[in-house]
Amino acid sequence: MCPESVERSRAEVRRAQILAAAVDCFRQHGFHGASIAQISKAAGMSPGHIYHYFENKEAIISAIVAGDLERFLILTAEIRSACNVREAMLARVGEGIDECLDQQTAGLKLEIVAEASRNPHVAEIVRSADKVCRESLMLTIRDTRRAAGHEDDDATLAAMVEVFISMFEGLQIRTIRNPGIDRSIVIPLFQNALRALLDQSP
Amino acid sequence: MCPESVERSRAEVRRAQILAAAVDCFRQHGFHGASIAQISKAAGMSPGHIYHYFENKEAIISAIVAGDLERFLILTAEIRSACNVREAMLARVGEGIDECLDQQTAGLKLEIVAEASRNPHVAEIVRSADKVCRESLMLTIRDTRRAAGHEDDDATLAAMVEVFISMFEGLQIRTIRNPGIDRSIVIPLFQNALRALLDQSP
Repeated sequence: MCPESVERSRAEVRRAQILAAAVDCFRQHGFHGASIAQISKAAGMSPGHIYHYFENKEAIISAIVAGDLERFLILTAEIRSACNVREAMLARVGEGIDECLDQQTAGLKLEIVAEASRNPHVAEIVRSADKVCRESLMLTIRDTRRAAGHEDDDATLAAMVEVFISMFEGLQIRTIRNPGIDRSIVIPLFQNALRALLDQSP
Repeated sequence: MCPESVERSRAEVRRAQILAAAVDCFRQHGFHGASIAQISKAAGMSPGHIYHYFENKEAIISAIVAGDLERFLILTAEIRSACNVREAMLARVGEGIDECLDQQTAGLKLEIVAEASRNPHVAEIVRSADKVCRESLMLTIRDTRRAAGHEDDDATLAAMVEVFISMFEGLQIRTIRNPGIDRSIVIPLFQNALRALLDQSP
């Protein structure tokens, strides 16, 4: 490896360490309760080191949101590349449900969106990522609908995207309010509801 | 009015004032960011007065959650008393969507559930209320299903309740992440998805 690559990969490791420490601190103390001092202690680095990689806590949130978005775009691209897009979507419902029901992940996502409801910088980060996420899901749903011979206008597709995401994001709230959800029964009900959404007449 | 009633009604007014002030403070600064000092200033009362009515911030959250639960129980009781429970549910979808899309209300609810994800006292408050809310919705869905000749086991009804609530609670997240949701197109899609949920074969 050339020296520049070694340097870059060391920087990536450091960034990842800081993000993991920040995720822990945000989960435990909330966005406001977690200080750069706490994050630096949890990451085993000086605050100066943290500031070298991230200007402030908003920049850390931005990196967390970007990571989530990247994973979502990979998922939707994989689904769109399947022979039968509709079946590929339905087949991955369980995976999506499991991610939303994970209490640690859900707690962090809720913390970020609660912060977005009162912090314009965090709102901007979250809304920009959400726009990209919606566009990708809209393409995926349009492919599914076209394969079944349905041509929808953009407003209808946008509303389908909202219903689709609401169901999954709602589970992030549900898993905190009711930790006893039986995923094995919820999965087929989600699949039925999504079939109804994807198959309806325009 | 007898003196005891005057005293009681004055206390109720005070409690309502404190709750309204606390709701504003929690929305603006989050649960941790809002102090009893801030709440007392916003309510125009001394901190001692606040503590007379509420032991701590958790007790305020408890009163907010109890108020939400009471409104939900009235709604489900009204729906169950309708001649056609299924149609009454579907007719009130728009009202439920509007409440979830209200950004101020959504921000507060997300703040409470984010706090519940790391604060066992708040988790206990939220989970006890959620249990009562689920039981009431389960009765309502069972009535609808029975009227159509379907008899479901409790696990299936519980999962239906989860899908039902996920869709609505998910909108609380959606309205923060995407403030541009077109409710007029989302409402019929929600109704379709709920029809599919309520009408499916056991």
